[in-house]
Amino acid sequence: MISASIVGGSGYGGGELLRLLIGHPEVEVKQVTSRAHLGEYVYQVHPNLRKRSQLKFSDPATIEAVDVLFLALPHGAAQKKINEYAALGKKIVDLSADFRIKDTALYEKWYGEAHSAPEWLPKFVYGLPELHRAEMTGASYISGVGCNATAANLALLPLVQGGLIELDAPTYIEIKVGSSESGAEGNSGSLHAERANVVRTFSAFGHRHTAEIIQEMGMTNASLTMTAVDLVRGALATVHATVKAGVTNKDLWKAYRAAATENPFVRLVKEQRGIYRVPEPKIVTGSNYADIGFELDESNGHVVSICAIDNLMKGASGTAVQCMNLMMGWDETLGLEFTGLHPI
Amino acid sequence: MISASIVGGSGYGGGELLRLLIGHPEVEVKQVTSRAHLGEYVYQVHPNLRKRSQLKFSDPATIEAVDVLFLALPHGAAQKKINEYAALGKKIVDLSADFRIKDTALYEKWYGEAHSAPEWLPKFVYGLPELHRAEMTGASYISGVGCNATAANLALLPLVQGGLIELDAPTYIEIKVGSSESGAEGNSGSLHAERANVVRTFSAFGHRHTAEIIQEMGMTNASLTMTAVDLVRGALATVHATVKAGVTNKDLWKAYRAAATENPFVRLVKEQRGIYRVPEPKIVTGSNYADIGFELDESNGHVVSICAIDNLMKGASGTAVQCMNLMMGWDETLGLEFTGLHPI
Amino acid sequence: MISASIVGGSGYGGGELLRLLIGHPEVEVKQVTSRAHLGEYVYQVHPNLRKRSQLKFSDPATIEAVDVLFLALPHGAAQKKINEYAALGKKIVDLSADFRIKDTALYEKWYGEAHSAPEWLPKFVYGLPELHRAEMTGASYISGVGCNATAANLALLPLVQGGLIELDAPTYIEIKVGSSESGAEGNSGSLHAERANVVRTFSAFGHRHTAEIIQEMGMTNASLTMTAVDLVRGALATVHATVKAGVTNKDLWKAYRAAATENPFVRLVKEQRGIYRVPEPKIVTGSNYADIGFELDESNGHVVSICAIDNLMKGASGTAVQCMNLMMGWDETLGLEFTGLHPI
Amino acid sequence: MISASIVGGSGYGGGELLRLLIGHPEVEVKQVTSRAHLGEYVYQVHPNLRKRSQLKFSDPATIEAVDVLFLALPHGAAQKKINEYAALGKKIVDLSADFRIKDTALYEKWYGEAHSAPEWLPKFVYGLPELHRAEMTGASYISGVGCNATAANLALLPLVQGGLIELDAPTYIEIKVGSSESGAEGNSGSLHAERANVVRTFSAFGHRHTAEIIQEMGMTNASLTMTAVDLVRGALATVHATVKAGVTNKDLWKAYRAAATENPFVRLVKEQRGIYRVPEPKIVTGSNYADIGFELDESNGHVVSICAIDNLMKGASGTAVQCMNLMMGWDETLGLEFTGLHPI
Repeated sequence: MISASIVGGSGYGGGELLRLLIGHPEVEVKQVTSRAHLGEYVYQVHPNLRKRSQLKFSDPATIEAVDVLFLALPHGAAQKKINEYAALGKKIVDLSADFRIKDTALYEKWYGEAHSAPEWLPKFVYGLPELHRAEMTGASYISGVGCNATAANLALLPLVQGGLIELDAPTYIEIKVGSSESGAEGNSGSLHAERANVVRTFSAFGHRHTAEIIQEMGMTNASLTMTAVDLVRGALATVHATVKAGVTNKDLWKAYRAAATENPFVRLVKEQRGIYRVPEPKIVTGSNYADIGFELDESNGHVVSICAIDNLMKGASGTAVQCMNLMMGWDETLGLEFTGLHPI
Repeated sequence: MISASIVGGSGYGGGELLRLLIGHPEVEVKQVTSRAHLGEYVYQVHPNLRKRSQLKFSDPATIEAVDVLFLALPHGAAQKKINEYAALGKKIVDLSADFRIKDTALYEKWYGEAHSAPEWLPKFVYGLPELHRAEMTGASYISGVGCNATAANLALLPLVQGGLIELDAPTYIEIKVGSSESGAEGNSGSLHAERANVVRTFSAFGHRHTAEIIQEMGMTNASLTMTAVDLVRGALATVHATVKAGVTNKDLWKAYRAAATENPFVRLVKEQRGIYRVPEPKIVTGSNYADIGFELDESNGHVVSICAIDNLMKGASGTAVQCMNLMMGWDETLGLEFTGLHPI
Repeated sequence: MISASIVGGSGYGGGELLRLLIGHPEVEVKQVTSRAHLGEYVYQVHPNLRKRSQLKFSDPATIEAVDVLFLALPHGAAQKKINEYAALGKKIVDLSADFRIKDTALYEKWYGEAHSAPEWLPKFVYGLPELHRAEMTGASYISGVGCNATAANLALLPLVQGGLIELDAPTYIEIKVGSSESGAEGNSGSLHAERANVVRTFSAFGHRHTAEIIQEMGMTNASLTMTAVDLVRGALATVHATVKAGVTNKDLWKAYRAAATENPFVRLVKEQRGIYRVPEPKIVTGSNYADIGFELDESNGHVVSICAIDNLMKGASGTAVQCMNLMMGWDETLGLEFTGLHPI
Repeated sequence: MISASIVGGSGYGGGELLRLLIGHPEVEVKQVTSRAHLGEYVYQVHPNLRKRSQLKFSDPATIEAVDVLFLALPHGAAQKKINEYAALGKKIVDLSADFRIKDTALYEKWYGEAHSAPEWLPKFVYGLPELHRAEMTGASYISGVGCNATAANLALLPLVQGGLIELDAPTYIEIKVGSSESGAEGNSGSLHAERANVVRTFSAFGHRHTAEIIQEMGMTNASLTMTAVDLVRGALATVHATVKAGVTNKDLWKAYRAAATENPFVRLVKEQRGIYRVPEPKIVTGSNYADIGFELDESNGHVVSICAIDNLMKGASGTAVQCMNLMMGWDETLGLEFTGLHPI
């Protein structure tokens, strides 16, 4: 058993992490912090944890040293205090965007300000095991992943690793997302009466997660288009890319099957019959799976690649636990066995 | 053509009222006020009004005299300035709860404070035409109605007017409501991620609208139980009452048919086949209809009476326009012809 | 007053048409047919019409001659009996896909079979007033429009009419749709427990409505990607196209403003603040509006054009009534004044 | 490890059971039957099981002997073949209504026909561990529970076991349910376009599950009112009962706390602040918890007791696994550890 604490535990990502760590067979959760909910039982904010944890939210100033420290703070907070956190956690997994982008110029371009702790950037492994598994074993610092970037990158993974698409061709990545992406604070547009029934293309291009696609996939001409739909959890990436001349359906099958074989949480969904023939976010709700699928129009090389994830799991906290497992040399799937529900 | 203005036009009730008045053949809207959205086009807040109105929100302090002044303010605001408003509007329809309850003791019991302008209470007709139509012709002041009270009162109307139930027996009124009842401001529980998928019995008894049921129906032992469901617009009242000894299904049919015949916006829904056999709020969305239905267990006298309304229409702004029509001596249904949608 | 009948009135398109014709000031509805619901009141199937119509569904074999005959039949049925229908209706509006495609080869390619009445194809005007208004005045035969094609074509209209995009460049049209598109019959995937919460990319490319985009817009390299979302009514088209060299935001503003000025049901939605900054299908629910908007990435010429419609209104029955109005020489907006709801 | 098979595995209850048994540490699933999906992989029907099970649906005729046989068949099927099934399963858990009601007259009254195997009725323990835990240890035959009856009975349990309410007073039990209760077959009203956004009181009284409340709680004057809401999983019971003279809030606290202490899956939810102050079905989605709460109006003895469950878990398959655990002498919670999600 190791010890772990969570800094920033009242948000959706922090709550999901807490749920996973409480159920993890090798972890004992020591502290979970929240200034706004100081002294409250964690189950008063995350009601699913009632009867599962008697922890109370503690003051971030009281955090004690642990084996693994998880940071689930708003953007910009972790980089400002990273030296302090490093003194408390033998290992750190930071769920925010602070240590994802390795190139300070790229970071500055997409985040609009200089990084506060650039010397720490090379110490962090980018937190997607499907891309950096080998580097994670024994690592000390792992960054989080953007949920939308993860859906996009896993949709692209078989195509890019297989060398099947033109990396410089215009690539349009349509992402449909649920309301939990807006966080527990929300904004005026997050009110149920305004957010229910929406199909709202709130960002045509320019979403910050694009930086993670550029960095990890080497796509120089990719754009992310974000559409909010009536769903709480889930993100679906529908990628429109162009295959290299001569690439066939058979090549794609091979690449997608390989991705599903090599990665325990990646599943290929491409059925000819039944209701669930393509990846759908609702089917992975609560699980760490990323379901992928594709269609190729051989007449013009247009490939549509799809990836469905739970944005709070594979897109955030599930992947963070998967990273911890790899860091500690444990089975990658430990504590992440929940299979999702049907119907839902 | 008469002139009308709305004080408090950025909320959901005010917006719905504006939509109705813009489409009303006998009304010209002069001003709509909003402090928060001063100077904005009304369609920036109520996007359905784009291309229908070039009005901008004006300062409440600039309201000019009109034929009919509608007050759509938060609870307590109208009673404090009623003398000022009365100087501006030849006739007033106040959508708030301020002038609904005629008995100051009853008001104080349910609203927790003394009324600021008790001398005005007798001047206002309680604003439900199905109960006070005759008094409304030529009236100068009409109050609003509580949306939940309206669903309950119209479910009870055939039973009470027909003298069919025991008024003093325990009567349980279960109301299921959509999120627009929480208003455009909302609260932490109104965030989509928290409010979606809910079946949340947020008030077991003690809801303020109970006062309107006591006053209008003479029910001394009725309680309102409120449950939030995943819906934006709509309220369904399911009333559990006890019929007097000897009352039969035939008596009920007669009373419900009479209610539907006498009231243009009341419809009896009681079918043996098809999908829509009972009243449902989604079918009246955007319309001013109140659909009613019933089931009687002749073995024990238990009657279940149901009423479905759109809380922003029959439960608020639609009824307010209906009251104006009656005040002005026009056809009750003028400007309220929208029939609702199917499917929706 | 003219007379009109609807052949095929129990489906969603037929029901919506019936709602509109009942409320139309210049139309008297004579008959509405349905084999499955023969003899039932129309409000038993379309419960919103209760108290608005006492019509019963009649046998298609009993249809009598009328001024305008609306055909709302399943694909393939109208073309087989078009001579019979032409003997009954002085004018015909056919909502199906049967007379939309003028080129028999294009029809055959996308519909997989030869057309049964090719001699009738040139007699029908393609039923989108925003593209063929002039030809409609006094016309006798007008086809329906595909709902998805309409969302796509109206998103493309300012770009194509303004000569602003490369017609031959790959154009990806992402369409998100509600469940009413599946019709009143549905399929196993239409069951609420399976269809709720979906983000289901059910067609990556190859949707039949593509033929209408090819024909009307001259796009040789456009593909439609269809995603089902949790919504009953509504379709949103998000078009990814490439502007010609030198085209600027200013050019786009001009073209989109022109489209909104020239067409009473087209609105430009492009706001800097507020909740509703872009077109959203829920805001046009029940109305005949098509809301359009755009974003241009001047760095690479990527334009995202958006159009939101109610698939049963602007995407089907609303446009059919608009066509009738033009055929008869009436005001285009007659009977189509409903403005939509907020919140919803 | 024991062996288990499921007869009838393609429905929602069967699928949920399969999910639980696949994840159960002491069970090996041998066969799952389905005539309609014979030969298909189970994950083609239950897509959440992809990568978790390579089982295919087998023919019911090929079922082999196992330690525990689960029957998840439509009503009436199990009682007709119970002798055959008893020859195959050392122990049987039947999820249907066939062996729940011990009194044949009561069964006949509510199910409208005579029981086919009355001699088997006394052999089955009624399958709610919170009521019959002691009898389950070592039992061979356990019946299922009605989902609505379970929500009602667990809401009533503290009141009845504590002797706090009048058993003969009129008791109105309002149940709000999701669409998964209609099963994987559905009906015309289950189509998404018709079932979305509903608040449909489809049964005012007379629901069959009432028989289980009469039998288990001894309530002679209880009625169930069923309302469908827009939710896939979940049932909320809101019980209106009357406490005995002199019963106070303190008595209720004691009784509810006792229920939560004595039963691992019962939780008391009664908070003064936060968003989740009362039991809500969405919070127990996928878990086996039954959350209970109450409010007492001391002025008139009206008690509102609430219970939220996942109808497929605590209301069906979760409880079936809990029963198996007790039958086998294992920890009651084995394989039922999933805690539910927030937000959802």
